[in-house]
Amino acid sequence: MQNNFFELKQECPNTKARLGVIHTEHGDIPTPIFMPVGTQGTVKSLTQQNLYELDAKIILGNTYHLYLRPGNEAMKFYGGLHKFMRWERPILTDSGGFQVFSLQELRKISAEGVQFKSHIDGSTHFFSPESVVETQRIIGSDIIMVLDECVPYPSDYEYVKKSSDLSLSWAAKSREHFLATQSIWGHKQFQFAIGQGGMYEDLRREYVQKMVEMDFDGYAIGGLSVGEPASQMYDITSVCTEHLPKNKARYLMGVGTPENLLESISLGIDMFDCVMPTRNARNGQIFTTRGKFNIRNSQFKLCDAPIDENVGLFSSKNYSLGYLRHLLMSNEILGLHLASMQNIAFYLWLMRIAREKIAANEFQSWKNNFLSTWNKDN
Amino acid sequence: MQNNFFELKQECPNTKARLGVIHTEHGDIPTPIFMPVGTQGTVKSLTQQNLYELDAKIILGNTYHLYLRPGNEAMKFYGGLHKFMRWERPILTDSGGFQVFSLQELRKISAEGVQFKSHIDGSTHFFSPESVVETQRIIGSDIIMVLDECVPYPSDYEYVKKSSDLSLSWAAKSREHFLATQSIWGHKQFQFAIGQGGMYEDLRREYVQKMVEMDFDGYAIGGLSVGEPASQMYDITSVCTEHLPKNKARYLMGVGTPENLLESISLGIDMFDCVMPTRNARNGQIFTTRGKFNIRNSQFKLCDAPIDENVGLFSSKNYSLGYLRHLLMSNEILGLHLASMQNIAFYLWLMRIAREKIAANEFQSWKNNFLSTWNKDN
Repeated sequence: MQNNFFELKQECPNTKARLGVIHTEHGDIPTPIFMPVGTQGTVKSLTQQNLYELDAKIILGNTYHLYLRPGNEAMKFYGGLHKFMRWERPILTDSGGFQVFSLQELRKISAEGVQFKSHIDGSTHFFSPESVVETQRIIGSDIIMVLDECVPYPSDYEYVKKSSDLSLSWAAKSREHFLATQSIWGHKQFQFAIGQGGMYEDLRREYVQKMVEMDFDGYAIGGLSVGEPASQMYDITSVCTEHLPKNKARYLMGVGTPENLLESISLGIDMFDCVMPTRNARNGQIFTTRGKFNIRNSQFKLCDAPIDENVGLFSSKNYSLGYLRHLLMSNEILGLHLASMQNIAFYLWLMRIAREKIAANEFQSWKNNFLSTWNKDN
Repeated sequence: MQNNFFELKQECPNTKARLGVIHTEHGDIPTPIFMPVGTQGTVKSLTQQNLYELDAKIILGNTYHLYLRPGNEAMKFYGGLHKFMRWERPILTDSGGFQVFSLQELRKISAEGVQFKSHIDGSTHFFSPESVVETQRIIGSDIIMVLDECVPYPSDYEYVKKSSDLSLSWAAKSREHFLATQSIWGHKQFQFAIGQGGMYEDLRREYVQKMVEMDFDGYAIGGLSVGEPASQMYDITSVCTEHLPKNKARYLMGVGTPENLLESISLGIDMFDCVMPTRNARNGQIFTTRGKFNIRNSQFKLCDAPIDENVGLFSSKNYSLGYLRHLLMSNEILGLHLASMQNIAFYLWLMRIAREKIAANEFQSWKNNFLSTWNKDN
């Protein structure tokens, strides 16, 4: 069956890694891909020109944050998020579920949805599977996610089953509502389901199969990278990808470290998002082709070497590690910017090389070599 | 007498405004000029590429901050501030006096200099007229300032006289030490004196004349914009410029609002620095060709107009006032960046137009018209 949205171009002969292209009306996205996180309509400390310079192919927005601020009324006024932030490439938005369920005390779940209080002003709001489709129609993201409950780790079997059943029923309602409504801004939108099932392989299998029956445009794996050991994350990911159709895009939500990304690509994942490169940048952790390190360490006090010459980024080639350290030690905004630029450049570089290696049928050996040498000096 | 450093090109027929060029080995600076403040080796939230895009002709660094962090040892290692921050255009550094005397409790003054405690770690340091020359030699700024005590406002006549006498004796020592030492990094450095004298016209006259006798490369007016009424600032500025030689550059330190700049240009000032455009940007006050306003006001919630189409800056033409408001309301770093870019662009635009109008002998009428119309709708 031809699928206009996701095009599978090549499969790795040695692993489950895949090379693909996601086609959207805001442009093509080569996969595997990393999506920088632009929570509130901005990837923290970067202009959209910076994102073009980094050649980010798609960014992520958070429905929860955008719903609260600037709010749906403003988003409608501005003609959707692309126009509001002047970003002409694809956007994926999550459903807001992850943020709402992180609010802990502030939420109340029912079969119909979830009531919560704004972290900004304490006002009460309600998200239903249908309402988050509506909000993402207003945002105009190219890829929209269904509302789900992200199961905490660890959770017992009964809780996971009950929660995942609720998420599954919400997925059905979400799909129905999506198919019954239209894009507001004239470009086609695509909808992904999110599989839950905690750390239980039989539940994961069951929910993946039930999601696939609903025929979404793509499938995400949720509820991983929540504190479990990496080996368990890989086991569950592998179970999921085994049961996902080859002709649909697969998105591992909220993952992860460079190691996590390469291992998950080898398990058949196409899409990733994570706050790690930008959040850690602001804490001084720098990811480079030479390894990762905390730039605040005194060894960088007198260090005139470029931040990173190999990621193809002007600012990382131009400014020194010592200057970057000075900026972060001095709490200067420019330090947050340069570190964020470098870390995103590194993540995007890693995905670019991974795609090249899959295309050249060299992915497995390159991955093994990279993981056994990268960051071993730090 | 020919002066290789400052070249007076034209004088306004109606006011004391002047058109000039300051020649340095890092490039020419057309005057009147505004110098963005780059306290700790960075103009807050901007890359040096941003500064080139803004066509900033010179920036200011703070000796006090750079002496403490990264420190003279690091600055020597990096080959001076230009190389450390990758900025190839001129830099002016203050002497550190202003910051040290702002520390209040943490300082102790003597004829030899001032002892103070670091605001970072409480460690004790000593600045002398000679040591701040040394530090600015290491920084390698194109224009270096003498150590002085900035007289608080208001102060009585006796205090001002005593303090200004001390500053004058320091200026003599500074000049002597400067002439006895050499540039470290191979480019010529120039030294400015700073005239004090509080709000007393006779003292201002006296100290200006004594400074001029020491034959500095340029002359600054210090101790203004410290809380006095604007009319008093203009009166004192006028007294000073009356007694300053025409063939030397004149720098009014720490000034000021757009109105202050235009009025002071008409009184014969060539150079300005002020944290206002960048500091106020971070608080949401935006200076535009349409006037100044606080972008947090709710009137900008639904406003898709560009930040400012008339200052020749891509980001201000590209992003909307509503998006900028959203970013600042959401405490996003990008908001600080876009607002700072706009405010500096506006200040530099204002100086550029002022120079054009002086060149066209239209300065006075343009200035009067600008001041009577700008910001009158807000």
